[in-house]
Amino acid sequence: MNAIMSKLVIVGTVAFDAIETPFGKTDKILGGAGTYIGLSAANFNVDSAIVSVVGGDFPQKYLDLLSSKNINIDGIEIVENGKTFFWSGRYHNDLNSRDTLDTQLNVLADFNPVVPEVYKDAEYVMLGNLHPLVQLSVLDQVKNPKLVVLDTMNFWMDNTLEDLKKVIAKVDVITINDEEARQLSGEYSLVKAAREIEKMGPEYVVIKKGEHGALLFHKEKVFFAPALPLEEVFDPTGAGDTFAGGFIGYLAHTDDISFENLKNAIIYGSNLASFCVEKFGTERMKNLSKEDINMRLEEFKKLTQFKIALK
Amino acid sequence: MNAIMSKLVIVGTVAFDAIETPFGKTDKILGGAGTYIGLSAANFNVDSAIVSVVGGDFPQKYLDLLSSKNINIDGIEIVENGKTFFWSGRYHNDLNSRDTLDTQLNVLADFNPVVPEVYKDAEYVMLGNLHPLVQLSVLDQVKNPKLVVLDTMNFWMDNTLEDLKKVIAKVDVITINDEEARQLSGEYSLVKAAREIEKMGPEYVVIKKGEHGALLFHKEKVFFAPALPLEEVFDPTGAGDTFAGGFIGYLAHTDDISFENLKNAIIYGSNLASFCVEKFGTERMKNLSKEDINMRLEEFKKLTQFKIALK
Repeated sequence: MNAIMSKLVIVGTVAFDAIETPFGKTDKILGGAGTYIGLSAANFNVDSAIVSVVGGDFPQKYLDLLSSKNINIDGIEIVENGKTFFWSGRYHNDLNSRDTLDTQLNVLADFNPVVPEVYKDAEYVMLGNLHPLVQLSVLDQVKNPKLVVLDTMNFWMDNTLEDLKKVIAKVDVITINDEEARQLSGEYSLVKAAREIEKMGPEYVVIKKGEHGALLFHKEKVFFAPALPLEEVFDPTGAGDTFAGGFIGYLAHTDDISFENLKNAIIYGSNLASFCVEKFGTERMKNLSKEDINMRLEEFKKLTQFKIALK
Repeated sequence: MNAIMSKLVIVGTVAFDAIETPFGKTDKILGGAGTYIGLSAANFNVDSAIVSVVGGDFPQKYLDLLSSKNINIDGIEIVENGKTFFWSGRYHNDLNSRDTLDTQLNVLADFNPVVPEVYKDAEYVMLGNLHPLVQLSVLDQVKNPKLVVLDTMNFWMDNTLEDLKKVIAKVDVITINDEEARQLSGEYSLVKAAREIEKMGPEYVVIKKGEHGALLFHKEKVFFAPALPLEEVFDPTGAGDTFAGGFIGYLAHTDDISFENLKNAIIYGSNLASFCVEKFGTERMKNLSKEDINMRLEEFKKLTQFKIALK
């Protein structure tokens, strides 16, 4: 362990969500990819900063929450006469699919990300799900990162594929879900899809399968982190971002980007995501102890580790 | 290891299949749950016998194949003037769903299973997917088994639920897929579903999720065996039966029914199933070496085993 903490730059939305699940509904609550990634990564000793934009309507208490988790918020621009990005969605009964009810870009429409000067030498960069040109701009501002992780989604594949490909060409790790991996690669088999996506740039491909876990691919190697079987999934919002935050938070904390350690990182990503879905929005992520995470790590070990002596 | 091999009684169809996948189609080939279970379990040192029925149209070479794998076929009744059970299906492009094109029960309609005398003291019983009354009859003939595993499907839940519940009440392990577990229990969460199904009788519940692996539940314990990510799934026919055969074959071979060893058994089930889908029908299962299986076990270890030192 280094005595000096690694720096982590996170770009992503800091926003309002309104969520309906079979278990209830919320008014406007704290949400956004940047928020979930930040809260998740904050469980590790990392010097992280969120780069984002909010409107004058964004409550100070939410910014205070991020600060209280030792997340630098100097890179969160506040547009006083603007409104914060808002998303509203309703989950179906199986919680595996959802309808978007409303999307208001607001201040996000003209977002011009600025990485704070002291984070321009960050070793780790997490490009949360956003317009690829915003992701590219952040990447241009960070001098010489050790590892860049990209999260994206089908929306950008449908609408800004050429820009997205430029980002993909520049990152070390991409995290996308199984359907998106198929769409991006044109391959149905996830093994083949990962191989095609590696050709586009990233050395590592992480394919998220929601309740079915996540796969890490690197050349001929593959590793699998299951999702923890839960009695009840309450609200899946932010699970993918929380996974990404746990993944890069652990890597930045350990400052080890070997394949062996990336395996550990997707276990931690899955670990953190398993908490996120237990309550509405960021509720569970606000009150998470090291002990909670360590206990769940033991559950992951019990779930997957076996000893077979060959006969 | 015992010097004396455990005896394993398998009841299940021995049949003809005609299969269409995106990769091609077959004429009538060897199929049936009993066949797949038997071929899979035959990879372990076990004294197994298949109880089934075929018609006079069933080729001797198929029976010879089973015998050559040291599977006792005295319990396979041959109805000379009858026709063998026939199933025909077409898989969709994703290979995750299929249409049944034809089902001809033929000799299966009046099947009255008879367990050979020398197998009535078998320690292990595998009740392959069949009418619950046939499964019950086999169970009645085996004196005092150490472990009984039941495989079934939604068809019997829809049509013969009361009979099925009688079988479920008498077995130690049930293996069903995720949708069937939900149907049987009325619970969406697989954790809750498994708990409800345990109340119906089985001490252990194995929930098969196809390409997403399999879960083993026992009281508060849960273990997960992933499916091996494959470049290409050629034909999924028989994968579930092959999983069951590997599962019980390994248990009978090791003669250890602790939870720790059941964990190993679902890894072996998943191991064997990963071969089954690589070629049409039983093709791959006919030519499998111990070395193939051991090499794949190493792949399963690489896929799932990790070492995290807590920091």
